[in-house]
Amino acid sequence: MDLLKEKILCEGRVIGTEVLKVDSFLNHRIDPQFMQAIGKEFARRFAGCGVTKIVTIESSGIAPAVFAGLFLDVPVVCAKKTESRNLDADTYQAPVLSFTRGKESIVRINKRFIDSSDHILFIDDFLAHGQALQGLISIVKEAGATVVGAGIVIEKGFQAGGKAIRDLGVRVDSLAIIKSMSEKDGTIIFEEEV
Amino acid sequence: MDLLKEKILCEGRVIGTEVLKVDSFLNHRIDPQFMQAIGKEFARRFAGCGVTKIVTIESSGIAPAVFAGLFLDVPVVCAKKTESRNLDADTYQAPVLSFTRGKESIVRINKRFIDSSDHILFIDDFLAHGQALQGLISIVKEAGATVVGAGIVIEKGFQAGGKAIRDLGVRVDSLAIIKSMSEKDGTIIFEEEV
Repeated sequence: MDLLKEKILCEGRVIGTEVLKVDSFLNHRIDPQFMQAIGKEFARRFAGCGVTKIVTIESSGIAPAVFAGLFLDVPVVCAKKTESRNLDADTYQAPVLSFTRGKESIVRINKRFIDSSDHILFIDDFLAHGQALQGLISIVKEAGATVVGAGIVIEKGFQAGGKAIRDLGVRVDSLAIIKSMSEKDGTIIFEEEV
Repeated sequence: MDLLKEKILCEGRVIGTEVLKVDSFLNHRIDPQFMQAIGKEFARRFAGCGVTKIVTIESSGIAPAVFAGLFLDVPVVCAKKTESRNLDADTYQAPVLSFTRGKESIVRINKRFIDSSDHILFIDDFLAHGQALQGLISIVKEAGATVVGAGIVIEKGFQAGGKAIRDLGVRVDSLAIIKSMSEKDGTIIFEEEV
């Protein structure tokens, strides 16, 4: 997606060897028009795949997920990372190690919101080590639902998550895949689209 | 907003004296078409008020905020509740006590994303004790920006937050205000619209 790549090159900042900061348009400061374009692109790519529900994880996946859900006309289920009095006890759960937060958390989805008739599309802002996505896949499989695929805004292709998820037989569509990046000279190289 | 009130009456569940669960359409399972209608309504109410930016807080405020931002054509800044390697050190901060989580957290906004020329509209899913909103107001005032008002999806009118925020001179527009609710018989009574 050319508009995304332009934004990454223009506004993205490389920190160290692993972190790409795109907080000016994707997660901390959110550009709604741009998110709408991203949601439309996901809907275009997964149209006709029989998606019945989108699953994302709080909180940076929510904005692209709700626009994808709008254009695919399906509900969005947002997996919760935090304990809350408002969350029912009867949940599917999976442990997820977050590299950006440096700790493990439990992701939860209320059992009322996924069932075996569902065809699930995952949407998230980043795919790096793939821990969050693997947790969501295990939850969806536990519910007996079908995994249609994963729509990712930015995949860090030099980290292991994308390969691990694709090796599970899951379709992963990333709008931009970063092949390499360097803090030293600020370069960001994308993989060619297939 | 009649559609919202119908959804609350149809799908909401009262737990104890304080908790209204609307997780089937507002926060855990999200209905994108409905969120779009909510965003459009906020945009209608705050059109012509010179809003330059929306501020919300992760994670349940994001969906209504991005649609309001879409229709007002302004960016959304999402205050962060969690520590992250991806968050810059140079942030505005405020302590916020969450009643649903039962603990205090620090909300943060990167200083790059608000400045003294901004006219800020807050958007959130719930207004109860008002702690989150008061934290956001203090951050925006510290940045020297102007507070336009707050758009709330559901206000629990029997809790103190709404009065406290209005007493600060801040306009609060809630799409539904709950006057009283009862777990025993499941009744939910709304305040009349003014």
